[in-house]
Parts: sequence; C-alpha cells; structure tokens
Amino acid sequence: MKKKISDIDFAKGDGLVPVIVQDINSKEVLTLAYTNKESLELTQKTGNSWFWSRSRNKLWMKGEESGNIQKVKEILVDCDSDAIIYLVEPTGPACHTGERVCFHHMLENK
Amino acid sequence: MKKKISDIDFAKGDGLVPVIVQDINSKEVLTLAYTNKESLELTQKTGNSWFWSRSRNKLWMKGEESGNIQKVKEILVDCDSDAIIYLVEPTGPACHTGERVCFHHMLENK
Repeated sequence: MKKKISDIDFAKGDGLVPVIVQDINSKEVLTLAYTNKESLELTQKTGNSWFWSRSRNKLWMKGEESGNIQKVKEILVDCDSDAIIYLVEPTGPACHTGERVCFHHMLENK
Repeated sequence: MKKKISDIDFAKGDGLVPVIVQDINSKEVLTLAYTNKESLELTQKTGNSWFWSRSRNKLWMKGEESGNIQKVKEILVDCDSDAIIYLVEPTGPACHTGERVCFHHMLENK
C-alpha cells in the first residue's frame, strides 16, 4: 500500500521524523538523520537526499559541501507513519568523518 | 573503535536514542524504535532486543507478548553516538501488523 506525505506523522517528533539512509544495493545502513515536511518534499522533487539539521537548525542536502550526494531511488514509510527509509545510491562516503558509513563503532560488551 | 554505553548521547533526545533494528543476515531494516540507557543495558545483558515505548511509557522486550523475539548479535553506534543499530536474528515478523518488516509502505511520488 502506498502512503502520501500528508500521511506522515510529523507531530509526534515536533515536526521531525527519523530517516534511515540505506544503500539500495548493498543494503548497508549509512546514516540516521531527520527530515521535516519541507526536506521530504525537496527529496521527492530533486531526487537527492535532503534533511533537517537539528544542530544547525536548517535544511541541508547531503553532499552540498562535500559533493558526496545521495540519489534517492525509493522512499519507504513504516506502519505507524513516523519513520522513513531513503533507499539511495551514494556517490561517496556517507559519514562526515570520511568513513563509508556512520555506524562504524561497535558497542563494547560491558 | 569500540564505544561504551557511557559514550552514548542520551541527553540530545531527552533520554532516548533511535534504534534501527536490522536483520544481520538479509540486511533488511525491520523496525525503528527507541531505547534509553536501561533498555540498552537489558539488551546487552539478555541478548534480546529491549526498547522504551514512547506511547506506553514503559520498557518493553520485542516478543514479550507475541513471542517473536529478536536475538541481538551485535550493536553498532554511529559517529555522533546518538543513534544505534541492533543487528538481530528475528524469530518471527517484526511488525505488530504481522508483516515481516515495519517498512512495508512506499511513499507515493506526488
């Protein structure tokens, strides 16, 4: 079943929903970020991944400075309409540290 | 590099961080949920996936009612220490609707 942007529950997270950015080919999870309605619309309109930065309080496009944009091939919505997946083809590292993915730390067992 | 629970930035999200639950074998993203320090400790201690329910305001273990528990094989932390991945072996559907994954809706393109 398809959902529309108007179905997304932005209210629960004060205007934001978490976005899981996943490589559509390798299935690796690259990043977790946040989007509001405007950045989600920009993502659909442009085909590049747009987000809301909680630290800088502004819209941002992944790669706007680094050039490492992500082409968004599909957008998935969860059962409660309060979380989103961008399935992307990345053009470079996802992480601002230069690592390919942001989840490059294991949690120590104790 | 390994991180510890004390490295996790719970403050940013009022005591909670988002958890991406990913199938360690198929790499499918099953669910997005939230954990606080206590449910993360329970996850490490028991090897089952524990979370904090924002709607019910309580700790919960996936499968405590349905029996569809998730065995947590590895826990990853992101660069900013404010998002987590549980890599799991699920024993049944992840979604409360009975679907295998929670992200079973496509976002309509306009």
